[in-house]
Amino acid sequence: MDILETIKTRRSIREYLDKDIGRENLTKILEAGRWAPSGLNNQPWKFLVLDGKDNLKALSKFTKYSQIIQGASLVICVFLDYEFVYNRDKDIMAIGASIENMLLEAHSLGIAGCWLGEIINRKNEVQEFLKIDKDLELMAVVTFGFSAERLTESCRKSLKTLLIKGLGTIGKNR
Amino acid sequence: MDILETIKTRRSIREYLDKDIGRENLTKILEAGRWAPSGLNNQPWKFLVLDGKDNLKALSKFTKYSQIIQGASLVICVFLDYEFVYNRDKDIMAIGASIENMLLEAHSLGIAGCWLGEIINRKNEVQEFLKIDKDLELMAVVTFGFSAERLTESCRKSLKTLLIKGLGTIGKNR
Repeated sequence: MDILETIKTRRSIREYLDKDIGRENLTKILEAGRWAPSGLNNQPWKFLVLDGKDNLKALSKFTKYSQIIQGASLVICVFLDYEFVYNRDKDIMAIGASIENMLLEAHSLGIAGCWLGEIINRKNEVQEFLKIDKDLELMAVVTFGFSAERLTESCRKSLKTLLIKGLGTIGKNR
Repeated sequence: MDILETIKTRRSIREYLDKDIGRENLTKILEAGRWAPSGLNNQPWKFLVLDGKDNLKALSKFTKYSQIIQGASLVICVFLDYEFVYNRDKDIMAIGASIENMLLEAHSLGIAGCWLGEIINRKNEVQEFLKIDKDLELMAVVTFGFSAERLTESCRKSLKTLLIKGLGTIGKNR
């Protein structure tokens, strides 16, 4: 099963239908996040699921992208857990892998998402609002819901731009 | 297409058959990495593909996991590109998403991989060996090849352990 199509057709979706994604889908999305790889398999992530119009509205005050949060079915707040940190760079990469897993799984289920990073500029206030201890650090808020947007194009730099010419011999006789 | 099975059955594979993965598979893996999400779509990654027994042997000297590199068909060295950095934490999460995309795509093609982090402890020496400028920073080396290992079990913390009890109303009447 080649998942490249899933990866390439995923988009950041910012407008959602007024329709819950349901517990079964949520569980699958969290399962995908849980099964990400991490250095020494330390799994340095924790998740907080927030839903309900009042809760989402309260959370949305901490970002300029408040409409995205308010329109979502739910959000997953993703934290770095200091109890399991062993190397900040590696642990943060693992968190990124976990978030991407959740977005891909959601997309494969027909559910849209948006990875919000701007909100972590006010992470201290958000954590105070959510009553989260200082041994966790907010890394991202990810919104989920059924898309109310039309399909859009996206773009990436060309592979040629991204590839460093190295010592490799790919394509040559060895 | 539910990709949860792909996510859950992926393993870090450390022993490979003496068989090239080929250019077509490599291109698909790089495509998956290229299409990862990033903050402001800044795509702060660069890739260097290294193969050939002599090259891999030379690179392998910089890690205690030298056998994994020497046995691989090829490795992809993943760099953070300072030219496009806007927030180190967010950019490093994006790099993690890109690496996970490559590992998932490889797995879905029947190709095994291993995300090596230990080697970045000697990133300066590695970059000198690879003749990489200081405007790039080595984040990981990912090995790829056809697996020579038996399928193994893996484990993750339970969802119950990972979930923070929050304000959410999931499962309650709303």
